Amino acid sequence: MGASQFREEDTRFRVDREGLVERLARILPEEGLVVHDAGLRAYECDGLAAYRQLPLVVAIPESVAQVQKILRLASELQVPVVARGSGTSLSGGSLPHPQGILLSLGKFNRILSLDPERRIARVQPGVRNLAISEAAAPHGLYYAPDPSSQIACSIGGNVAENAGGVHCLKYGLTVHNVLEVTAVTIDGELVTIGSEAPDSPGYDLLALMHGSEGMLAVVVEIAVKLLPEPPTKSVLMASFDDVEAGGHAVAALIAAGVMPGGLEMMDGPAIQAAEDFVHAGYDTEAAAILICELDGTEAEVADQLESVQALLRSHGATHIQVAADEAEKARFWAGRKAAFPAVGRISPDYYCMDGTIPRHQLAFVLRRIRELSEHHGLGVVNVFHAGDGNLHPLILFDGNKPGELETAERFGSEILQLCVEVGGTVTGEHGVGVEKINEMCVQFATAELEQFHAVKHAFDPEGLLNPGKAIPTLARCAEFGAMHVHNGELPHPDLERF
Amino acid sequence: MGASQFREEDTRFRVDREGLVERLARILPEEGLVVHDAGLRAYECDGLAAYRQLPLVVAIPESVAQVQKILRLASELQVPVVARGSGTSLSGGSLPHPQGILLSLGKFNRILSLDPERRIARVQPGVRNLAISEAAAPHGLYYAPDPSSQIACSIGGNVAENAGGVHCLKYGLTVHNVLEVTAVTIDGELVTIGSEAPDSPGYDLLALMHGSEGMLAVVVEIAVKLLPEPPTKSVLMASFDDVEAGGHAVAALIAAGVMPGGLEMMDGPAIQAAEDFVHAGYDTEAAAILICELDGTEAEVADQLESVQALLRSHGATHIQVAADEAEKARFWAGRKAAFPAVGRISPDYYCMDGTIPRHQLAFVLRRIRELSEHHGLGVVNVFHAGDGNLHPLILFDGNKPGELETAERFGSEILQLCVEVGGTVTGEHGVGVEKINEMCVQFATAELEQFHAVKHAFDPEGLLNPGKAIPTLARCAEFGAMHVHNGELPHPDLERF
Repeated sequence: MGASQFREEDTRFRVDREGLVERLARILPEEGLVVHDAGLRAYECDGLAAYRQLPLVVAIPESVAQVQKILRLASELQVPVVARGSGTSLSGGSLPHPQGILLSLGKFNRILSLDPERRIARVQPGVRNLAISEAAAPHGLYYAPDPSSQIACSIGGNVAENAGGVHCLKYGLTVHNVLEVTAVTIDGELVTIGSEAPDSPGYDLLALMHGSEGMLAVVVEIAVKLLPEPPTKSVLMASFDDVEAGGHAVAALIAAGVMPGGLEMMDGPAIQAAEDFVHAGYDTEAAAILICELDGTEAEVADQLESVQALLRSHGATHIQVAADEAEKARFWAGRKAAFPAVGRISPDYYCMDGTIPRHQLAFVLRRIRELSEHHGLGVVNVFHAGDGNLHPLILFDGNKPGELETAERFGSEILQLCVEVGGTVTGEHGVGVEKINEMCVQFATAELEQFHAVKHAFDPEGLLNPGKAIPTLARCAEFGAMHVHNGELPHPDLERF
Repeated sequence: MGASQFREEDTRFRVDREGLVERLARILPEEGLVVHDAGLRAYECDGLAAYRQLPLVVAIPESVAQVQKILRLASELQVPVVARGSGTSLSGGSLPHPQGILLSLGKFNRILSLDPERRIARVQPGVRNLAISEAAAPHGLYYAPDPSSQIACSIGGNVAENAGGVHCLKYGLTVHNVLEVTAVTIDGELVTIGSEAPDSPGYDLLALMHGSEGMLAVVVEIAVKLLPEPPTKSVLMASFDDVEAGGHAVAALIAAGVMPGGLEMMDGPAIQAAEDFVHAGYDTEAAAILICELDGTEAEVADQLESVQALLRSHGATHIQVAADEAEKARFWAGRKAAFPAVGRISPDYYCMDGTIPRHQLAFVLRRIRELSEHHGLGVVNVFHAGDGNLHPLILFDGNKPGELETAERFGSEILQLCVEVGGTVTGEHGVGVEKINEMCVQFATAELEQFHAVKHAFDPEGLLNPGKAIPTLARCAEFGAMHVHNGELPHPDLERF
């Protein structure tokens, strides 16, 4: 992380732009090639808007054969390639390379087949996440992973980032809901990875493709699992007058074997911001609220509803409200779903973090974040997928005040290092991209990073696919480490204490 | 597959045995080194006893540091290393290499920690699968994957083979139940792969380790998820007078969103053999029976039990029996669990296949297997994990009759190719090992195999870890292909028809 610090010079590539455009024009029709500044501008950033970079050229293929030819050309001319779906990455995963082709998969937007009996949809990578569930709905089916950006984000991007969402505690991440992908390697070979059968022989390259952030191959077709819509859903909301009590209640719930469809937590500032914005009827007196969705058959849900309420009460819930009807269910969720824009109303800027921690560390980590917030003099609002320990602290700052962006970034980096320290990771579901590449040096030892590079080399020996993302070079870590890490101890004085 | 054909000469390695033993003796205590024939004999095969090979030496380390030293030594002297847990592989995954070290992890048999609140156990690779559930039982927890060999098989082997079991339809394969592994690379580096958090940044090497059959690294510690024992279980048994009807009923059940804890099917010959052996009370008039276990809360199970019975009836079940008590549940399962030894009583030899197919192809594949059985003049008994389309046809033959082993192997190979043809795979849960290495040439295209080799190279550039297993060389495929594959069409005349 550190938009302000990410300016590593990549001098490996020196591309003859004119020659490249001329060769691409032989592969693509005129409308498939963007070369003028105004057109390129539309691709200069993704969801992490603090980072901007114009690509050399944008290629918009519409057939697999064209993708194969483009990648063969890139190999021949040694041109970097950055694949892009809807460009909603929150970590800069599809930030263009200044010497590279931005490969837009926007025209790969067809649902190729949908088999309700086998509960499998075959889709192109540019299909929007929500469009799959919409197409499956008439059959009573849906596609489970539901990142907040599901209206816009593409399934290809979901594979690249191994996207999660509110329901991933029960229904898994993207990797658990994809059966097979067809991908083009950097030398233009078309390979099928995975299968419609439950397990596939050979090395598990299907999982390897998930979360690989476009650095191993370009996915051109995806077979996803569809699930039957659960017959019933119940939503309840519990208040706590202490955030840590809420954290303990979540741990107890999971330890008891309850598996909610969704389990979200918000702290006081988040509750207030959301309530002011959408009037969801949240308990603004509470220090934390927990929103819990239970799904299944009538009997199953009724049963779980009872035990969940008993458990929450015995763990300090001061107030519990069960949504009476569909409208109230929607209202309970509306506040949570609007939390980010709601925070946007109370602070000129905010920086959304995405760390993951073991659930039992929730209470401790929340307390530490509060301490860090005081230390840095910046407010923080906490919204999180409580069930799987995925935190989204939103650091509040004003980009117009000198130094505040840098302080926010430093604060954010400390939160991520704290996550690593308690046994968690620097990213839950937003990916590493360019944003968290330095923190990867904290997360992984040299031997582990070397192993990552060896795997990358096995797919893309010349390092042409999405260079500079996800996996830091050892040189970068040495530089970052020289500043931050000392004898394996953690960097910041205020983190060394615990 | 083809024990009789697997005699590929591996002339790459020429090891000075005396020098190797002398160096190993500096690392290991006397009892940690087996050099005499009588001792080596105990390791000459695993669960696939048709293949036998003495290793050069057996090393039995008891510390991670010793494993690191052994692997560094193997790298230095260019000696193959075959890791072995309990040696229960059904595909020859731990068959020794004639020029190699057999690395037994039998002394790595401790449960290092068990945290009931976080529901995580950290174990050494030599711990038996069932021992984890036994240790977790006092806390009402268990480890879900339950291969038939769970009394004996080791968790390290489970990772190497990505083992499944009766309950993997609902609870997933090994890869879905492991959070983190610690492994030693061939150059002796200790790396941590995965994390206790739900997702881990960087490439998904954790999934890659699963099913890699000891060819990427040696796992020395494993963190597994524990699940709460479901409060209730119900077991029902349904009869069908036609195997295909049973297949359709399974597909309908899954399509309806029912998720049984176990869903097993047996055909007529399997029912008869099991009934004769253990007197489970099976319906010997039926052409197929389906055993379905439902688990969850009382309410949930009662609810599902009703809808499952209705569904099975509407799909042609002629008789349904719900186990009245614990004893009857155990009896229903006893027949299924004893199916293999039961078949051993009716045939001098049998050859257990392990293919996976998309569920909707079940009826078609069963019919084809019957046709192939008539064609080859060898009986076949079908037992399968119906829910996830994992077939275990047992081919009956008499090894003392000239040519019958070869016919059985050819028949088996045709079944596996049939699985590939209908969109399935050549192995469900038993791995590839040496047994199915030729069929991998049918399953994968050259570009895909090359990708596998590149990944292998990223971990083990000299190819010292378990050489000759799991992933065929392109040379082997060319040879196998020259015999069997023609223009991408399937080999055997009787398979070309459909």
